[in-house]
Amino acid sequence: MSPPAVVLVGTRLPANLGSVARVMANFGLRDLRLVDPACAPDDPGARAVATHGETVLAAARTYPDLAAALRDRTRVWATTALARDLPLPVVHPRPAAAEARALAGAAFLFGPERTGLVAADLARADVLVHIPTDPAARALNLAQAVAVMAWEWSAAPWTPPVAPEPAPRAEVDGLVDHLVAAALRRGHYSEPRLRVRAVRNLRSAVQRAGFTRAEVRTLRGLVRVLDTVPPEPDRCD
Amino acid sequence: MSPPAVVLVGTRLPANLGSVARVMANFGLRDLRLVDPACAPDDPGARAVATHGETVLAAARTYPDLAAALRDRTRVWATTALARDLPLPVVHPRPAAAEARALAGAAFLFGPERTGLVAADLARADVLVHIPTDPAARALNLAQAVAVMAWEWSAAPWTPPVAPEPAPRAEVDGLVDHLVAAALRRGHYSEPRLRVRAVRNLRSAVQRAGFTRAEVRTLRGLVRVLDTVPPEPDRCD
Repeated sequence: MSPPAVVLVGTRLPANLGSVARVMANFGLRDLRLVDPACAPDDPGARAVATHGETVLAAARTYPDLAAALRDRTRVWATTALARDLPLPVVHPRPAAAEARALAGAAFLFGPERTGLVAADLARADVLVHIPTDPAARALNLAQAVAVMAWEWSAAPWTPPVAPEPAPRAEVDGLVDHLVAAALRRGHYSEPRLRVRAVRNLRSAVQRAGFTRAEVRTLRGLVRVLDTVPPEPDRCD
Repeated sequence: MSPPAVVLVGTRLPANLGSVARVMANFGLRDLRLVDPACAPDDPGARAVATHGETVLAAARTYPDLAAALRDRTRVWATTALARDLPLPVVHPRPAAAEARALAGAAFLFGPERTGLVAADLARADVLVHIPTDPAARALNLAQAVAVMAWEWSAAPWTPPVAPEPAPRAEVDGLVDHLVAAALRRGHYSEPRLRVRAVRNLRSAVQRAGFTRAEVRTLRGLVRVLDTVPPEPDRCD
């Protein structure tokens, strides 16, 4: 059983980075991934508060974009303070943690301090996690949000997986990209503004299906077959 | 249903004070009590990180000692990283939060950053709470420990109380003090070094009994009766 990765997008404050690393270590999480951070993991301000989390901080990897950070992940929970107009289920941290406990490739995703995750990033998740807070004081500090998820994960009883583990993100992305490329070649998605949204919805739908690696391979094979020019039909008359 | 008080003993760092206030507000806790703090709640370093928790910080009260901070509390959970040689039950945060949810006079107690609570402070609690952490990274940041307890309280289902609410601490303390004073007048506890430990154990035992206000009154009446010089018996012969 492998602990979830914590993926931070656009983190601004070094102290938050250090506090995240510390509380991850407290609760047995080790895999910290940074996308487009405004400060480096070896920032002195991060290291000053990382007590016990120095090794997590030192091992943190930085990625050019979210897709790259999620390549080997099989199921992604994104934290969000707001209800979004996205075709994604929204769950409480407790069932999210219980499900993550049963997987080898889970990721918990957190946005920038001020703004949270944008729709394009949320669309890379399978499930949104909403941490309920007082309406008069909604915004959680980033490290506190990580604390809640890490704590819930560590406190969750291990339960055997109820479904086969989905394919890693890179393979799901490959299927989506393959589908989109084939469609573009046929003049589909020709309106660029609509294309972004349509591709995002397609990605959500394919992700949500939870295809296994074998199923993704099967489907890519089908797309490959369909993406050929059909032979002229035999003339019978 | 009234949220628990958060009682911080000997807090050193202003940033922790501010972060505690913020996460309390996030999860609906409002009653912050400080015992012997090394920094004031209006320290700029506390206010700088108190986002949403400014009112909690502004309303925080400072007490000369722990007994004074707990006078109106009916049940006290003290967080501790270490197993202690104390006659107190040790529970996981989840059942602690569920029980606190059903009470009007709960308090969660947290010690100084470096050292945690000393035995004399722990003896003022009814129950110890241990937040399980990775053995390689045991020490939680103070605000993260408060975050776990506040989150667990907010996420706990409300359950009706299973036993009558115990008397407030001031009344339990009054009973213990009364008993000890009466015993001292009779030459009991004459060895000062043993007295401290004996009184602490007595306090733990009486606290743990969970006497209601009416029961405490009954018992004090009995102590008052016993604490008089008995009249000479009637001479019958």
